Amino acid sequence: MIRPSLIFDLNSYIESKNIQINNELDKIIDAQNSNLISKAIRYSLMSGGKRIRPVLCIAASEAVGGEERSVLPAACALEMIHTYSLIHDDLPAIDNDSLRRGKQTCHIAFDEATAILAGDALLTLSFQVLSSIDVNRYNANTWLKVIHLISIAAGYKGMIEGQIRDISYENRHISMKKLEEMHSLKTGALIEVSVKSGAILGNGNPEQIELLQIYAKNIGLAFQITDDLLNVAGDPSVTGKGVGTDMARNKCTYPALIGISGSETYAKKLINNALKAIESFDNKSDPLRAIAMYIIERKR
Amino acid sequence: MIRPSLIFDLNSYIESKNIQINNELDKIIDAQNSNLISKAIRYSLMSGGKRIRPVLCIAASEAVGGEERSVLPAACALEMIHTYSLIHDDLPAIDNDSLRRGKQTCHIAFDEATAILAGDALLTLSFQVLSSIDVNRYNANTWLKVIHLISIAAGYKGMIEGQIRDISYENRHISMKKLEEMHSLKTGALIEVSVKSGAILGNGNPEQIELLQIYAKNIGLAFQITDDLLNVAGDPSVTGKGVGTDMARNKCTYPALIGISGSETYAKKLINNALKAIESFDNKSDPLRAIAMYIIERKR
Repeated sequence: MIRPSLIFDLNSYIESKNIQINNELDKIIDAQNSNLISKAIRYSLMSGGKRIRPVLCIAASEAVGGEERSVLPAACALEMIHTYSLIHDDLPAIDNDSLRRGKQTCHIAFDEATAILAGDALLTLSFQVLSSIDVNRYNANTWLKVIHLISIAAGYKGMIEGQIRDISYENRHISMKKLEEMHSLKTGALIEVSVKSGAILGNGNPEQIELLQIYAKNIGLAFQITDDLLNVAGDPSVTGKGVGTDMARNKCTYPALIGISGSETYAKKLINNALKAIESFDNKSDPLRAIAMYIIERKR
Repeated sequence: MIRPSLIFDLNSYIESKNIQINNELDKIIDAQNSNLISKAIRYSLMSGGKRIRPVLCIAASEAVGGEERSVLPAACALEMIHTYSLIHDDLPAIDNDSLRRGKQTCHIAFDEATAILAGDALLTLSFQVLSSIDVNRYNANTWLKVIHLISIAAGYKGMIEGQIRDISYENRHISMKKLEEMHSLKTGALIEVSVKSGAILGNGNPEQIELLQIYAKNIGLAFQITDDLLNVAGDPSVTGKGVGTDMARNKCTYPALIGISGSETYAKKLINNALKAIESFDNKSDPLRAIAMYIIERKR
């Protein structure tokens, strides 16, 4: 297995990026405006997510020589889209979850109507942010392309189709192929487009963009497998989530299909593929390498 | 009262535009793709709406010398945003409506989860369509600006804020000022941006765009007043909606605040303002003039 340099301090990297991302998100949701929807948006958006998608977007941009500042609007928009999808997935009509990250879900803390509209508002706001760039400083064509890619990834042939399949597979035994397709739509599409947007906005060349997409596809799937593994054998005091809930819900997971050790081996293989894809990249890609390793080593 | 030329045949105009709009929408939702969400999207989007917003967008573009073809993506996106907002507003947690345009609402015809996700998908798809233009033929800066304006109008300081206020005003007596602000957000913002986008994409000059915005603001409000009037005194076999439902729901409306004849006078005044704003425009604006007249004369 390829091991990235252990010198790189991922925690500090993520921490410093999160400060930038959170500052920017804070500015966007506009502290002065205290209407109900902006309160609900703030509640869900600022509830301590790991910001994996925006960090990946920035790291991919840096990997091809781009600057953090120039991708920040895309990074924030991706986090908003992720958060809106969580708010709507938690609704009573969908997953009916009352807790997320140890806090009440949006429809419990506010009410169902507010949660539906706050999700809608976040999704809309993400496109407002993506289209608010200064066209004198940035290339409008490139941003239009990024908007297009993100809308496809988040749409009814991407993330939303994944969610629909997830619902329809409840209480059903499905094949490995179907499970993998579902995840690559439900979570993979947005993770992939996070990396791809970063690479495009950082002015990566077509070959770099393609290799980064292979990286993203592999870490996206590995991320899901470790999620499943943590649900089986994680420490709830660390994960902040219930353990065994997938099994109780009769959900089809990797451990259920190929066992715990089979899942671990598979996740490692995927991370190896991801690292191989960006082998030729220089040390500006160390954050991406460290993120790949973190994904299988994480405890939460 | 200024009266536009009666020679202009609005019905034929709307009919021919609707054929273009429906063809384009049909292509967008992709007949080949038969997943659940695309079925729900098709069901709601193709259920015989009046297509007021896209027609206004095209008519505004033509009024400043633009071509129908070049604004069609924006026109379709606006109808998609309108339809998504109806799907979500009809949900049990919001208005809990089971009928719309004489057909079952989306969450009744499908189920609640599908309706939530179909609305999300339509909203996302609207931005996909807005960002899918050919940058070799059209100006990317202009489209980025249009995306920005539409996202603001549809967002949490526009349409969504209007919906939140509408919910919070239920069973309350509110002032005329508050009623007007609520409508100008809930329905006005999207009508205004429909006209403004058309004017921008048709390459209107700043003065034309400003005058068209005044036109839009006035017809938007007049549209809402006639909606309230039809709810009091319309013919349900023509409107396809219930009569007296606002009163039964204890909703604050124009007739409730200023009476039926006061509302009629006010709507006429607004239409007069709208026609005055575009007085200096040539006969390419006849469709806009006819639409303004139609708004107060309509029976459904």
